[in-house]
Amino acid sequence: MSRYVVTGCAGFIGSTLVDRLLVDGHFVTGVDNFSTGLRRFLESAHKNPNFEFIETDVLNVDALKDAFASAEAVFHLSANADVRFGTDHPGRDLEQNTIATFNVLEAMRHNGIKKIAFSSTGSVYGEAPVVPTPENGPFPVQTSLYGASKAAGEGLISAYCEGFDFQACIFRFVSILGERYTHGHVFDFYQKLKADPSRLPVLGNGKQRKSYLYVQDCIDAILLAMDKAQEKVNIFNLGVNGYCEVNDSIGWICEALGVKPALEYSGGDRGWIGDNPFIFLDTTRIQALGWKPKYGIREGVIKTVEFLRANEWVFGERG
Amino acid sequence: MSRYVVTGCAGFIGSTLVDRLLVDGHFVTGVDNFSTGLRRFLESAHKNPNFEFIETDVLNVDALKDAFASAEAVFHLSANADVRFGTDHPGRDLEQNTIATFNVLEAMRHNGIKKIAFSSTGSVYGEAPVVPTPENGPFPVQTSLYGASKAAGEGLISAYCEGFDFQACIFRFVSILGERYTHGHVFDFYQKLKADPSRLPVLGNGKQRKSYLYVQDCIDAILLAMDKAQEKVNIFNLGVNGYCEVNDSIGWICEALGVKPALEYSGGDRGWIGDNPFIFLDTTRIQALGWKPKYGIREGVIKTVEFLRANEWVFGERG
Repeated sequence: MSRYVVTGCAGFIGSTLVDRLLVDGHFVTGVDNFSTGLRRFLESAHKNPNFEFIETDVLNVDALKDAFASAEAVFHLSANADVRFGTDHPGRDLEQNTIATFNVLEAMRHNGIKKIAFSSTGSVYGEAPVVPTPENGPFPVQTSLYGASKAAGEGLISAYCEGFDFQACIFRFVSILGERYTHGHVFDFYQKLKADPSRLPVLGNGKQRKSYLYVQDCIDAILLAMDKAQEKVNIFNLGVNGYCEVNDSIGWICEALGVKPALEYSGGDRGWIGDNPFIFLDTTRIQALGWKPKYGIREGVIKTVEFLRANEWVFGERG
Repeated sequence: MSRYVVTGCAGFIGSTLVDRLLVDGHFVTGVDNFSTGLRRFLESAHKNPNFEFIETDVLNVDALKDAFASAEAVFHLSANADVRFGTDHPGRDLEQNTIATFNVLEAMRHNGIKKIAFSSTGSVYGEAPVVPTPENGPFPVQTSLYGASKAAGEGLISAYCEGFDFQACIFRFVSILGERYTHGHVFDFYQKLKADPSRLPVLGNGKQRKSYLYVQDCIDAILLAMDKAQEKVNIFNLGVNGYCEVNDSIGWICEALGVKPALEYSGGDRGWIGDNPFIFLDTTRIQALGWKPKYGIREGVIKTVEFLRANEWVFGERG
């Protein structure tokens, strides 16, 4: 059994990972500041004596140095995960995704920890000219502050691998779906339809093609890669082997909710500035390690709607 | 005539650019903190009434906001340009090359300035699997904190182009040679040979293949691209169409100095951790705009030695 650190431990993916690590018998030190994480997501973890929680901001490097003591590896999942509103507060992605990652690396170095998992994003590909996009496709041009900040985090981690003999697994996610999902298009559509089931405003023309992955499949991949990956820097796309249109997703959500709203499109092939109209990642590399997602996009969407229906408190709660 | 800002205006490339812009009749606001720039490099600029100098650190965003007032475009050349000693002070590249670039972008946004030239580096390619390396070669894995910090700066700039309608020319330089050169292998070798012409310690096996560019050719390319480039994000490799071995360069330096030292190799195919043993950039893209370097690597090395011989004060002076 090992001791692991999980940053962003109260978040959607972080808290799900914490529960899995605890079930597997590991010791877990969780770090979160509840800026977007939710205390309720730690309820089951807190019942396990192997879980230690430290409430701190990842911008506080000294707190991280203390928190990381005696850990074997760090799952660095804390992030500003909002890609859409980057231009409203341009410094946030830089701070939360780039500088925070630097702090995590420094806290690791301070404690002699050399192994890190990092939640990056398919957004680092910008508008990829090659789809499905492989990890070593053309050098991308960043189109969002979020993608730029995560790509910068990847770069820092890779430089630490070379300079300080770290080993890293970097995961470029598509959007993740499932239990504890608290932001993204299913959340937004659910909230709107709850307020008014007769109409649904949709950003763009609804034809944006996006890929999604169910959270437990995502955790499976992360744990497998951390166990099996052999290189100094291991970069993996994570996603299902396909995509859907926003309109497909709307259909599944409405079906699950039993509503038939009038769809009101804002128009254009992008939902917002920097929105990538076609996201579909080539996942050959992670599949070569023996991973395969158990759930498709439709199942992920429906599981998400079911979670939201059973947990409508998430629409009100913050922190 | 226009007003331009040049950050790092007292540096090797920055001061050379300032002099060119002034000769062309433009107004120039220069910003530097003399951390590596030299006051003497601004002597000719100070004689021109169109030059305004503001001594400040690029980490001071408020000072930048004031300094940038009424400028049309920014040449952002200030940087920590040291690739070798990144691991001695891991935060420096992040601060000077990534956070500083963010500050420059914010100061531009504050003043409604939308056009930027950025001095990036061929180091963003890490150890490129494709040589000569094109701008859109495979998504690189960073191998140095310097390269990572510059790639992060590129990402921020590109995201501002998308999010705030900026236009950028991003230049990925090989190492630059010529008058006002104050750090790099020619500087180091010159200094060592001056102290003891009978022997020369060489990092690595001397067979590392590197590409170089003469500073005036570099300035020509920057000015041409800023004039002609039409895309939102324009990325250009800058270098000569070839490379040399470190041993070739040593030969030219020794010839120019009239010395025949015993060469003492530290061994291995890398000079230091993260050293890229083969740098050669594909410059087809900038050549398509009509640019061609006037000087080769040998001429650049010899011009550098001549500058150092006529300006040995640079070995003593800082700030």
